[in-house]
Amino acid sequence: MRDGRATRRRLLEAAAAEFAAYGIAGARVDRIALAARVNKAQLYGYFGSKDGLFDAVFGEHIEEMVTNVPLTGTDLPGYAVRTYDACLARPELVRLATWARLEREPSGTLVADLAGQTAAKVEAIATAQRSGHVDPDLDPAHVLAVVTTMALTWSPASLFEAVTPGGPDSEHDRRRRALHEMVRRAIAPVGRAQPSPGADGP
Amino acid sequence: MRDGRATRRRLLEAAAAEFAAYGIAGARVDRIALAARVNKAQLYGYFGSKDGLFDAVFGEHIEEMVTNVPLTGTDLPGYAVRTYDACLARPELVRLATWARLEREPSGTLVADLAGQTAAKVEAIATAQRSGHVDPDLDPAHVLAVVTTMALTWSPASLFEAVTPGGPDSEHDRRRRALHEMVRRAIAPVGRAQPSPGADGP
Repeated sequence: MRDGRATRRRLLEAAAAEFAAYGIAGARVDRIALAARVNKAQLYGYFGSKDGLFDAVFGEHIEEMVTNVPLTGTDLPGYAVRTYDACLARPELVRLATWARLEREPSGTLVADLAGQTAAKVEAIATAQRSGHVDPDLDPAHVLAVVTTMALTWSPASLFEAVTPGGPDSEHDRRRRALHEMVRRAIAPVGRAQPSPGADGP
Repeated sequence: MRDGRATRRRLLEAAAAEFAAYGIAGARVDRIALAARVNKAQLYGYFGSKDGLFDAVFGEHIEEMVTNVPLTGTDLPGYAVRTYDACLARPELVRLATWARLEREPSGTLVADLAGQTAAKVEAIATAQRSGHVDPDLDPAHVLAVVTTMALTWSPASLFEAVTPGGPDSEHDRRRRALHEMVRRAIAPVGRAQPSPGADGP
């Protein structure tokens, strides 16, 4: 029993590395079995197929992200910065999710199973709108999507620059401050008389 | 000569569809040659290799995007909305770029060849900062990265929802307005006495 659990764990870890690097079609079950020191029959016994193994790996990583980077409706700028840090610490997650998008779900919602968690996040933002932390004129579902996407600006799937922990700390801090500031401005409640951009500049 | 150009064009179009759907490793040269009604020897004669063909396809798509969605420093909210529309009209581009990120460049700048165009965009934003259209306290390179990423919130590589032209027009319009508004707020010059969020709500 204990042995089975350890084997399963080794397989999930080897598979996470393989899928993150090569995607679903590109992953090789042989390499995963070899890296986990498990024979292929055992692998199929546990997970049924390569797709079943990907599901297990991806589900586990999503669970971990939701736990490690909780959304706080009253501190969305902080949530964006924590997401930036999570991408530095665990680049596999965004890569796994992006492979899933490209290879499995070219359109629509990426993970239908997350509907409940997404609804809870939208509700947390709606609550923050009522308490004056987020502008009530914005759609809370749009706020969730746009703010989380902003937080992924420098992620491992960035179409600009995918940053790694190796760079200078000062650059990471500058990006964190930019995210915090731009998210704060994007969602802050504003007075009715907010001027149009450039109408009467500073 | 004219025949050669038409053949090359058919190959590029077939390859764009194939690479967008399956990625670089997943694309099959046989399928591309078949779809373009060209034999494989001709394909290799023109592009050298599958990687060479991807380079040609990706380069052409980037060129097209830069031309079709020019960045206007004085209207970044409009640029975000035009990027949203470009993703609806040409989903292949974001998919090609995202495959390139996952399969080729796991870290750093995605397309080093674009350094000149990126510098021109940063300069356009710096100019808009001097004319009072964009807050001068923000780093123009950060503004470019964050605003463009915001514009990709519902793109074909979205980790939330990848939208297609098929949905109701009213939903597209609501997303366009959300992008326009959140980008506008994120970058607008602010008075010195801008209150902290929630400090003294509306």
